[in-house]
Amino acid sequence: MLTVALPKGALLTDSIRLLQAVGLDFSAFLDPKMRQLQIHNPTGTAKALLVRAQDVPVYVEYGQAQLGIVGYDVLREKQPQVAHLADLEFGRCRMSVAVKSSSPYQSALELPPHGRVASKFVRCAREYFDNLDLPVEIVPLYGSVELGPITGMSEAIVDLVSTGRTLKENGLVEMEVLFESTARLIAHPLSYRLNTDNLYHWVEGLREKTLSLV
Amino acid sequence: MLTVALPKGALLTDSIRLLQAVGLDFSAFLDPKMRQLQIHNPTGTAKALLVRAQDVPVYVEYGQAQLGIVGYDVLREKQPQVAHLADLEFGRCRMSVAVKSSSPYQSALELPPHGRVASKFVRCAREYFDNLDLPVEIVPLYGSVELGPITGMSEAIVDLVSTGRTLKENGLVEMEVLFESTARLIAHPLSYRLNTDNLYHWVEGLREKTLSLV
Repeated sequence: MLTVALPKGALLTDSIRLLQAVGLDFSAFLDPKMRQLQIHNPTGTAKALLVRAQDVPVYVEYGQAQLGIVGYDVLREKQPQVAHLADLEFGRCRMSVAVKSSSPYQSALELPPHGRVASKFVRCAREYFDNLDLPVEIVPLYGSVELGPITGMSEAIVDLVSTGRTLKENGLVEMEVLFESTARLIAHPLSYRLNTDNLYHWVEGLREKTLSLV
Repeated sequence: MLTVALPKGALLTDSIRLLQAVGLDFSAFLDPKMRQLQIHNPTGTAKALLVRAQDVPVYVEYGQAQLGIVGYDVLREKQPQVAHLADLEFGRCRMSVAVKSSSPYQSALELPPHGRVASKFVRCAREYFDNLDLPVEIVPLYGSVELGPITGMSEAIVDLVSTGRTLKENGLVEMEVLFESTARLIAHPLSYRLNTDNLYHWVEGLREKTLSLV
C-alpha cells in the first residue's frame, strides 16, 4: 500500500492540501485532537505517517514510506539516500547567517576567525564556512539558536528564516543567505525504480498539481 | 551575575520550585504567555535562560551559564564537559528497550543480530548493544520513536519511559532498563573551581533543599 511520510509543523497544511488535489485525503492529521501518527485515507487505499521533519527522510530511506514531503533544508543537512523528485514550491524560506544588529560585522568574511556560530544545521554551517576558508567553531544547538548571540556564546547563527520575525524580536539581522529552501517530494529509490504501488502515477499527479497551484 | 540554564519541558516546574526554595525566583517562565528566553529574578541579582533540555549543557559548557539543571539522560547521551554537582531526585524516569507487545522477543539478547533499533539516544543505545556484543543497527530519529516498531522499520526502540503511557498507547512493552534518570545540577567547571558569583553558596543551598524536599 502507498505510504507517504508527512512532516509535522510548518509544511503540514500545504502538504495535505497538495495530496488532496491528487485524491489522497489525509486531512484527519489537521484535527488538533488527533493523536494517531499513522492513518489511512478514507478509501483505505493509502497510508500516511506524521513524523518530525528530520525523520521524514529516514522513513523514506528505509522504505517504510515510498514517498515523503520535506524541506530542502533537511535534505541538505542530512543528505539521506532518497530520490529527489520535485520542488513543490511551498514553504519557501532561506538558510541565513545572522548577527546582532549592534554587531560590527557586515558580512560573513568579517566574522572573527575562530569565532563561534550557533546552529541546528551543523553540516550546512560547517560547509559554508569551510568554503569561505574561515575557521569558525560551530556550536550545535537544538532550539532557540537566537540565544547564542544574545548571551554572547556565539558571534553569529546559521538558521532558517521565513518571515524574519523571530530575528527581529531578538534584535538580530540577516547577513548572508546560504541557500533557499522549499518543500520537496522525495521517494524511496528502489520503490520508485520498480514503480511499486504505481508510484509514477502519484508522482506525475503531484508534479502536475504543483505546476497548476504555483 | 549568576546565570542558570533551565530546561524546557518536563523538568521545568520542579526546577523553578527548587530554585525558589533557595531564593531565586524564575517563576515568570511558567507564565504560558512569556516569550522571553532570558529573564532576571525580581531582585535583579541573577539570570535564567530557558532552553531545550539538550542545550542546557552547551550553555554551561561554554560558561554562558554557571549552573544548569538537566536530566541525567542528556548527560549520558551528550557527555558534555561540565561538573556534575548533585542528583536533584525529581523527574525520575528510565532509559528502556521496548518492543511490540506482540513481538516474540523477551529480552535484548533475543533480538535478531543486525536487527534495527530506533532511538533519539543514539550513543546510549549504541553503548548498550555494544556491551551485549549484539550487532544491531541504530536508526536515529528525532521524535515519536514508537513509530519504528509500529511501521516495521525497527524491531525495538531505546527511549525514555516515565509513566509508560506512550508505550501502552502504542502497543509496546518495556523489555530492559539501561539506566534510571533524574534531574541533575551541573556547573561550568572553571566557574565552580573559582567560586565565581559565590557558586558554592548556591550549590550548597540547592543540595540542602533537595535533601529536605525528598
